[in-house]
Amino acid sequence: MAEFDPTTHPHRRLNPLTGERVLVSPHRTKRPWLGQTEPPQPSDLPQYDPKCYLCPGNTRAGGAKNDEYKQTMIFENDYAAVLPPPGPAAPAAPHPLLTTEPVQGGCDVLCFHPRHDLTLARLAVPDIERIIEEWSAIYNKRGNQEGIEYVQIFENKGAMMGCSNPHPHGQVWSLSDVPSLPATELANLKRYALQNAPSASAPKGPEGKACLLCEYAHFEVGVAESEGRVVVKNEHFVALVPWWAIWPFEIMLLPYARHIPSIADLTSEERSAFASILSQITKRYDNLFSCSFAYSMGIHQRPVPRKAADAADADAAHLHLHFDPPLLRNASVRKFLVGFELMAEPQRDLTPEQAASRLRACSEVHYLDTTE
Amino acid sequence: MAEFDPTTHPHRRLNPLTGERVLVSPHRTKRPWLGQTEPPQPSDLPQYDPKCYLCPGNTRAGGAKNDEYKQTMIFENDYAAVLPPPGPAAPAAPHPLLTTEPVQGGCDVLCFHPRHDLTLARLAVPDIERIIEEWSAIYNKRGNQEGIEYVQIFENKGAMMGCSNPHPHGQVWSLSDVPSLPATELANLKRYALQNAPSASAPKGPEGKACLLCEYAHFEVGVAESEGRVVVKNEHFVALVPWWAIWPFEIMLLPYARHIPSIADLTSEERSAFASILSQITKRYDNLFSCSFAYSMGIHQRPVPRKAADAADADAAHLHLHFDPPLLRNASVRKFLVGFELMAEPQRDLTPEQAASRLRACSEVHYLDTTE
Ligand SMILES: O=P(O)(O)O[C@H]1O[C@H](CO)[C@@H](O)[C@H](O)[C@H]1O
Ligand SMILES: O=P(O)(O)O[C@H]1O[C@H](CO)[C@@H](O)[C@H](O)[C@H]1O
Repeated sequence: MAEFDPTTHPHRRLNPLTGERVLVSPHRTKRPWLGQTEPPQPSDLPQYDPKCYLCPGNTRAGGAKNDEYKQTMIFENDYAAVLPPPGPAAPAAPHPLLTTEPVQGGCDVLCFHPRHDLTLARLAVPDIERIIEEWSAIYNKRGNQEGIEYVQIFENKGAMMGCSNPHPHGQVWSLSDVPSLPATELANLKRYALQNAPSASAPKGPEGKACLLCEYAHFEVGVAESEGRVVVKNEHFVALVPWWAIWPFEIMLLPYARHIPSIADLTSEERSAFASILSQITKRYDNLFSCSFAYSMGIHQRPVPRKAADAADADAAHLHLHFDPPLLRNASVRKFLVGFELMAEPQRDLTPEQAASRLRACSEVHYLDTTE
Repeated sequence: MAEFDPTTHPHRRLNPLTGERVLVSPHRTKRPWLGQTEPPQPSDLPQYDPKCYLCPGNTRAGGAKNDEYKQTMIFENDYAAVLPPPGPAAPAAPHPLLTTEPVQGGCDVLCFHPRHDLTLARLAVPDIERIIEEWSAIYNKRGNQEGIEYVQIFENKGAMMGCSNPHPHGQVWSLSDVPSLPATELANLKRYALQNAPSASAPKGPEGKACLLCEYAHFEVGVAESEGRVVVKNEHFVALVPWWAIWPFEIMLLPYARHIPSIADLTSEERSAFASILSQITKRYDNLFSCSFAYSMGIHQRPVPRKAADAADADAAHLHLHFDPPLLRNASVRKFLVGFELMAEPQRDLTPEQAASRLRACSEVHYLDTTE
């Protein structure tokens, strides 16, 4: 029988952060696509849109007027998914299977830049550094509020990822509980530290224990570039298509030179390296299909900043970002995670190694900047 | 402080089948929607489309010619996500975190009806019974094949759910392993049976033990209809919006009068009741927003039919169907499960009780049949 070839033979890969598997069916990209195509992204946005509720000086839905901001702007979401504490206690469960857990918190919106027509991929690196500073500030502010146990920073980019306004912005949802997915990741990071000896060369987690993500990133950085999953790296950060990626061109971005629980723990040099690699990967994304590349991005880290009387075991968290982009073949054909994926297990149509190789081949000069 | 009100106060609900939570933010439907809208579904489909590879007598991508079928037609997918056994053994893992598990199996396509323009919602009940018989047959056939450990029957309906052909059809993926989600559900059903005493009145699982789903369905059927989550029921089956629903109008359909591990265990009377309630819920779905309602549907049950030398503990499975429909407000505004949902936890904008009440208010006469 033929030897196993990951680009031919369907197989499953385990995501050690979530404990879930992905079905890899690489030969499937060959099938013709007759289904829904995505409308083209608007390419002629004005620098200022008088109807945009995020542009400087405009009025928002709630009636407030935006500053004439020059860099970033942060404000509370007028339609927050959670409301500030305190809230009423949980009602009695009518059956043990029907429990209610009240949640409190707050939702913030962070505008990345005053210009309506720009995105992370087209901002200068110092502008991205400014965004990282805002992320750190809100993580510290919200994470130190009474009753807040988790801060989720994320960005939905592009209409096909549910973003309702192209003005460059992200969100921050702060909650009184740790949500399902980061709770699972943190539990798996802690379990890994208990059950595995650290390798000699990888950075160590708290108390000299093994960190799953430090071990993983360290391994990936050592794989011969042409065969591996690394898209781009600098002295502090690496962007890679994880072994267990679900989305076609999914990227995990993380520091690999030392164990870093949160953005609040970055040195200023690391912050610059972070900004610069964010610029590099978003440019590559746009260049892949010559379009403004849609994705959801989220920052996973220590649930909230370290506090005096705090459980130190949350330091097992290692800062990392997930980029989940839906496009598969070109600017208008996406991967649908439906049917089998919703009912059984995520399935992907090209290997993570193939995706990484495609992203490595992309330029870091934005396609719009070369033709302007 | 005000008493807890599930239609006002954000809260989390636990899904005992998956162990995951959903964030319920009911006040959020009030926000204006400025984002992407879905293109209208085609409403003028011909009864026969000469270019459709699923219509009777036409030629498929692989070159085969369809029968002039009069009821249903089943064939192997020309672009299968898994390939038949045997396959090569797994390669050595380059690192303990990078394991490969080869998967084998087969993918089938089941055409529900020769008419290109119909859907489950517009088929006669006997036609739906015929589909259920086909599901049982393929579950038995594939599930008894050497090396097959799991059979997933599902339907992607509508372009927005990745369906590439409106001709009414579903899929069946049969695999050499149990995928992540059904494996988790089965583990939780088994754990529930070990850890909980059965209630006096609910049907019992194997060996007289408690079945999570029998207990749950029995409880829901007993809740006063106007307050509950039941959409419609008959003597054998109940369709409800589960307490822990993620998708706006998600439905779980299951037998509630006795413990039934799989479709192969249905009596002919139960099969008729199943066909009739499938017709009722798909009609209500279409009537909700007067459109051909998109969804992904999947059947969860015993991984494969009972075999002689078999581990009886898989009988802890209780047959149930999940319907995951994306529409939220009307025929063109969907819920996006992105950003926070992908990075942290699913979030919904109306309560399951509100969704059930809306679906109960829908007619069971299809809107196209009343105006024709
Ligand atoms: O096989 P189809 O219908 O072409 O494809 C559809 O269903 C599959 C199974 O859920 C998904 O993997 C695909 O992304 C989706 O487009
Ligand atoms: O808050 P927005 O950007 O209007 O809404 C978007 O992001 C939210 C958080 O991921 C999702 O719950 C919404 O479905 C999506 O449309």
